[in-house]
Amino acid sequence: MPSKPSIPKGTRDFSPEEMLRREFIFDTIRQVFRLYGYQPIETPAMENLSSLLGKYGEEGDKLLFRVLNSGDFLSGVSDEELLKREYGKISSRICEKGLRYDLTVPFARYVVQHRDEIVFPFKRYQMQPVWRADRPQKGRYREFFQCDVDVIGSDSLLNEYELIRIIDEIFSKLNIAVVIKINNRKILAGIAEIAGLSDKIVDITIAIDKIEKIGIESVIEELKGKGVSMTAINKLRPVLNLGGNTEAKLNDLEGLLVASETGLKGTTELRTLFGYLDYRAVNSSVELDLTLARGLNYYTGAIIEVKSKDINIGSICGGGRYDDLTGIFGMPGVSGVGVSFGADRIYDVLSGLNHFETFKTYGQSVMVVNFGEKELNYNLNILAIIHKAGITAEIFPEPAKMKKQLAYADSKKVTYVLIAGEDEITDNNVTVKNMITGEQSKIKVSTLLTFFK
Amino acid sequence: MPSKPSIPKGTRDFSPEEMLRREFIFDTIRQVFRLYGYQPIETPAMENLSSLLGKYGEEGDKLLFRVLNSGDFLSGVSDEELLKREYGKISSRICEKGLRYDLTVPFARYVVQHRDEIVFPFKRYQMQPVWRADRPQKGRYREFFQCDVDVIGSDSLLNEYELIRIIDEIFSKLNIAVVIKINNRKILAGIAEIAGLSDKIVDITIAIDKIEKIGIESVIEELKGKGVSMTAINKLRPVLNLGGNTEAKLNDLEGLLVASETGLKGTTELRTLFGYLDYRAVNSSVELDLTLARGLNYYTGAIIEVKSKDINIGSICGGGRYDDLTGIFGMPGVSGVGVSFGADRIYDVLSGLNHFETFKTYGQSVMVVNFGEKELNYNLNILAIIHKAGITAEIFPEPAKMKKQLAYADSKKVTYVLIAGEDEITDNNVTVKNMITGEQSKIKVSTLLTFFK
Repeated sequence: MPSKPSIPKGTRDFSPEEMLRREFIFDTIRQVFRLYGYQPIETPAMENLSSLLGKYGEEGDKLLFRVLNSGDFLSGVSDEELLKREYGKISSRICEKGLRYDLTVPFARYVVQHRDEIVFPFKRYQMQPVWRADRPQKGRYREFFQCDVDVIGSDSLLNEYELIRIIDEIFSKLNIAVVIKINNRKILAGIAEIAGLSDKIVDITIAIDKIEKIGIESVIEELKGKGVSMTAINKLRPVLNLGGNTEAKLNDLEGLLVASETGLKGTTELRTLFGYLDYRAVNSSVELDLTLARGLNYYTGAIIEVKSKDINIGSICGGGRYDDLTGIFGMPGVSGVGVSFGADRIYDVLSGLNHFETFKTYGQSVMVVNFGEKELNYNLNILAIIHKAGITAEIFPEPAKMKKQLAYADSKKVTYVLIAGEDEITDNNVTVKNMITGEQSKIKVSTLLTFFK
Repeated sequence: MPSKPSIPKGTRDFSPEEMLRREFIFDTIRQVFRLYGYQPIETPAMENLSSLLGKYGEEGDKLLFRVLNSGDFLSGVSDEELLKREYGKISSRICEKGLRYDLTVPFARYVVQHRDEIVFPFKRYQMQPVWRADRPQKGRYREFFQCDVDVIGSDSLLNEYELIRIIDEIFSKLNIAVVIKINNRKILAGIAEIAGLSDKIVDITIAIDKIEKIGIESVIEELKGKGVSMTAINKLRPVLNLGGNTEAKLNDLEGLLVASETGLKGTTELRTLFGYLDYRAVNSSVELDLTLARGLNYYTGAIIEVKSKDINIGSICGGGRYDDLTGIFGMPGVSGVGVSFGADRIYDVLSGLNHFETFKTYGQSVMVVNFGEKELNYNLNILAIIHKAGITAEIFPEPAKMKKQLAYADSKKVTYVLIAGEDEITDNNVTVKNMITGEQSKIKVSTLLTFFK
């Protein structure tokens, strides 16, 4: 006999209790997506590797789970090739398919493949698992769940505004206080441009990110170490010194970026977006954060990231605008913007906040005690009445001892236990035991439906 | 630029329209599962191959999708082994994980792995995709969706009864007329036993299955061809001649199986089950079908199969009782019973019945026309009011031509279009256009919430 079975590292089983909590998260997110006119799609777990490779950088390619071809997968590989043991090359010969790594690339593939059926702008959401061969660690899994919402085929900043409203509404409903950080890739490009460092955007962004931790002078030392000239650093210095609220930052940036057309386009976009948010404010804090550089090679306009104010767990939602996502599949010039909610981290935040404590069951539920064959018809009738009221109900499948049946009811957090033995049956009664208060009362079976309605 | 992208054969994308229909199916099934006290679990897409191999027969092993180990997957395989090209053996060395092939084996693995957290009987449902490297053909996919419902840890026939009620209720709600066919493995074993053919159960069952098509005498010829003696055939003849309704068949069987303890146990079980169904009848036809032999090596008691009365597509739901499912994972002697609903075939049946024709949208929805920046604040306010009523609503993201905006509203099957240009704004009005009737009327913005409630 094998030892206790297990599952692959980095993957998880979800128990009924966890499912209840997870469904609350997914339902909340889905409900808001729909409210704003987004429609669902789903794509297969397996994509052709040709659709996935090269889309996530070299590191991403390594993290793809590859699915072995069926049958004699070695038939096309020569002895010589095998003995060279270039496993990267060989894997591409023996695997044509891979597991989806995110929902964005499959979405781009979907849009291009179905372009003739789609009316643009296309507002879609997608809530499915993704797989990455990452080193498993606390809060990081090899199978995890993304909830993506994107608009494709519209340049309007109203889309960014709408996404911020969606983020705000979802986290309000989940009762998680968040800060929504906004940046714009064009501003980062502008900053690099005025310093004559257009090839060093990433270094500059990393530097800006460290100011709070290590101070401006240490950051400048670091930049020097990376070969940035004093001339450039002197041009960067005012940006590194930027402070104040969003309005103040935007004003200063407009001055500093006056020589960069791209940079000014970035500040204008942000002004428009914050202008919309002035019309109709949101609950969450929304702030300009110049250090925000997620997916820098990917996004072309807005960059969005959401963090919990109370639980320090990193980003729980993020995204941005990408001007050429479908270009990789041969359909250039279609702009899109979207964000992705990390269901697993949101789960951890809700756990950390103890918000799940009130999550006990799937609502009202009933167990009918099983007395045996003689009383069965009567008790099945009671069960049918409860079901008719649309209430979750079951009869214990065996005429076991009352103690065992009640223990089962307890474990399932049933709200009522119904008891009808010989005495009750004689008088057309049923004993109703409230499992929360412990109260017990006898009622007529004819009034049962009313009782549960 | 690559040519139009595609997905692996046998897999599918689901469009918003298909998702709407699929969600109707999943929601209906889930709702009934819950009504009867079943709770959800989920298991990972990838299982250790050691959990899957050998569980589905030799053919099943070949149909498993295997996931290539990360990194240098060839490192443990010697040059000699590679050059032998025994691809079956090599695949087990370079792949530790496989995609789930069904939901039953992962459930068994789950129960054994989590046995200390589970209170039995454990009533669980599970609705997830499964993957099989089958040859794709019409109605058969390599990624498809199962909805499984099982009780484990109870021998009571009330569980079988409950599953039949669940089947009946689900198909009633889906508006699909079905026949629920029941058999019992013990009866098949009894028939084989009295004929002295215990090793030929499968042949006998296949023979019984053909009577309707080719007639009794041809069936007997076939059995002779398979080496069945005349003595045995004469003992089988009365079984092959069985006719009439379930009651008549059971009576005859009890006579014929009088010498088989196992066989009589089977008829007793069926009598009990049909007795429960006499207490509380179901809408569907439920009939004893001796030819039913699905998963013969697997089931030990009841065998259940459901077919649509109107659409000829094979089984749309099936299952049975298995006395030793968890034994394969080292936990023997736990009896379970369950059925699996095939969501994809149910989809095809509903399509065939034209039941989807009334499925147009996700309910009431609204599009607000975009007139541009000047009118934007006013129109965003209107949008917020509609959202407050919990109604799906969106503003067209660009101030495009009215024709284009209305075409978009049309494509999304929006029920109302709201129009507020300069005139409406002056008078605090909004024009409400009903997209179904074409009617148009002006109302005060202050009455909008009432209008949509």
